[in-house]
Amino acid sequence: MTTYHAWAASRPGAALEPFEYDPGPLGAEEVEITVEHCGICHSDLSMLDNAWGFTRYPFVPGHEAIGRVTAMGAKAKGVSIGQRVGLGWNASSCLHCDPCLAGNQHLCREVQPTLAGRHGAFADKVRAHWVWVVPLPAGLDAAESGPLLCGGITVFAPLLELGIPPTARVGVIGIGGLGHMALKFCRAWGCEVTAFTSSATKEEEARAFGAHRVVTTGDAEALQALAGSLDLIIDTVNVALDWNGLLNALAPKGRLHVVGTVLEPIAVSVFPLLSGQRSISGSPTGSRGAIDTMLDFAARHDVAPQTEHFPMSRANEALDHLRAGKARYRIVLDADF
Amino acid sequence: MTTYHAWAASRPGAALEPFEYDPGPLGAEEVEITVEHCGICHSDLSMLDNAWGFTRYPFVPGHEAIGRVTAMGAKAKGVSIGQRVGLGWNASSCLHCDPCLAGNQHLCREVQPTLAGRHGAFADKVRAHWVWVVPLPAGLDAAESGPLLCGGITVFAPLLELGIPPTARVGVIGIGGLGHMALKFCRAWGCEVTAFTSSATKEEEARAFGAHRVVTTGDAEALQALAGSLDLIIDTVNVALDWNGLLNALAPKGRLHVVGTVLEPIAVSVFPLLSGQRSISGSPTGSRGAIDTMLDFAARHDVAPQTEHFPMSRANEALDHLRAGKARYRIVLDADF
Repeated sequence: MTTYHAWAASRPGAALEPFEYDPGPLGAEEVEITVEHCGICHSDLSMLDNAWGFTRYPFVPGHEAIGRVTAMGAKAKGVSIGQRVGLGWNASSCLHCDPCLAGNQHLCREVQPTLAGRHGAFADKVRAHWVWVVPLPAGLDAAESGPLLCGGITVFAPLLELGIPPTARVGVIGIGGLGHMALKFCRAWGCEVTAFTSSATKEEEARAFGAHRVVTTGDAEALQALAGSLDLIIDTVNVALDWNGLLNALAPKGRLHVVGTVLEPIAVSVFPLLSGQRSISGSPTGSRGAIDTMLDFAARHDVAPQTEHFPMSRANEALDHLRAGKARYRIVLDADF
Repeated sequence: MTTYHAWAASRPGAALEPFEYDPGPLGAEEVEITVEHCGICHSDLSMLDNAWGFTRYPFVPGHEAIGRVTAMGAKAKGVSIGQRVGLGWNASSCLHCDPCLAGNQHLCREVQPTLAGRHGAFADKVRAHWVWVVPLPAGLDAAESGPLLCGGITVFAPLLELGIPPTARVGVIGIGGLGHMALKFCRAWGCEVTAFTSSATKEEEARAFGAHRVVTTGDAEALQALAGSLDLIIDTVNVALDWNGLLNALAPKGRLHVVGTVLEPIAVSVFPLLSGQRSISGSPTGSRGAIDTMLDFAARHDVAPQTEHFPMSRANEALDHLRAGKARYRIVLDADF
């Protein structure tokens, strides 16, 4: 029998408590990671609270893990024992469906999130299919890189997947865990960067992260002044916005790209879409190839999240800090089992 | 003084009556076209009825004109006197704004539709800036080509602009003036084509136009059976649809592209956009280059609208026929001044 030590909630919204479980035999294509650090993403809270309706309890959060490979199944590929690796939102893909075969493993028809239907990385050890166990490039600080594996790829993937050129004028809505990394990536990508934030206190930091300009979210006049100017807006928040005002801020052929899990339907007039040849789209994290590319880019451009660290044994305190909207800007738990 | 003879409505929804006007001196960059044929588009009705709120009266419809160049301003380019040409939705662009300079003259900040703020092509003569006066390639039948200039380019442009490959599985919603041309273009483009129609009587014709499969619009079960399968859906109708059901029918990275002027807001859940990396977009007709490319493609692949002809003097009868939903599938008026 194998025992993994973790932190789990027994019901929606409950505090985490020590939890042990037997993960069973290691699958032939599985990799065991001994966790050193794990970022906290807002979706850990959403899952903890069962906001999306599919959480199973006891629930172990955590899907921005950095650690070392400590066991490998007989058919596990691409990593070796002792290697430092990362694990993000996804832990398993089938590899043989159309999206997988096309390199879009994150769009796999049977994709398995790290923290849904299995136990996540607020733990001493976590497992994943080898395809999602990503070698960490030299040049990245292991203690700071966990948040790149989910938050980072979520905001990086649109730049890569949508073929955004460095000449683009890009807006980022929400300067939080995702948004502050988006500002850094967009600036490093060569773009003109506009930050939208509802918090005036974040203006100076938004500029430090890479914004050329900061606009107050909800300031209709400021939004109107941007009319027709932005090629891409990346929306990282999960609340309803002035969708038509944002579409109006897009240049011809511009795109509003949503990565925040807005629960209310998005309602837009078709006219700004038609007349300006604009689009609205979304994406979930990114493919394995996109993650590799993102990590290389982050290492080369010195893009890292701005973090606050808590020992994993104080995960509840860290979650409260995030829940209170006080995280500046991404929390990382350091394993202390 | 110059006199153009036209058919005009004096107020919203009124019957057309003979109307003469003096177009003034021909501009240096303008071309005069003597109209031979003019298609009728549903937007002629929308404008006649002031459905979009910006019609000026007397209103002369018509923006799918074929004719011959009979006068050119001193700086008009690209055509010559006597040449057979087409004129579509747009009649003027500035040529110097960013979209114009990038070849997107249809997205010009000062783009002027053929029938708004000026008089359209239900007339013996019509004028346009040279950039929108399109030479008709040899091999296209002048009497049948008018509808390509607006309806045709509207459904062709998405294939071209969005880089749709011939391997794509494409759905077309609405088998009317636009939709039947969309089926022909998509089939000639090499795609697998699914027609969505609310009229069971159109099934056989939809197949003749190029559909491999015909689905009844609003049949939730049939839509569900298509889950995850279509790479592109071109929506040519102007009514609200089961948007979330349609998003669900899209494959990963699929796109719902709207070219119908739906008046109600489109309300969609963000989850199918996020999880499947899907998008919703729109477009208005196409650029000058796209129109040239479309006409060449139509000539090479023998794509032409299925038309019914009326003499222009019976334009009211033709409009009633269209209004009654009886057009099969595009009406062309033959000038008889």
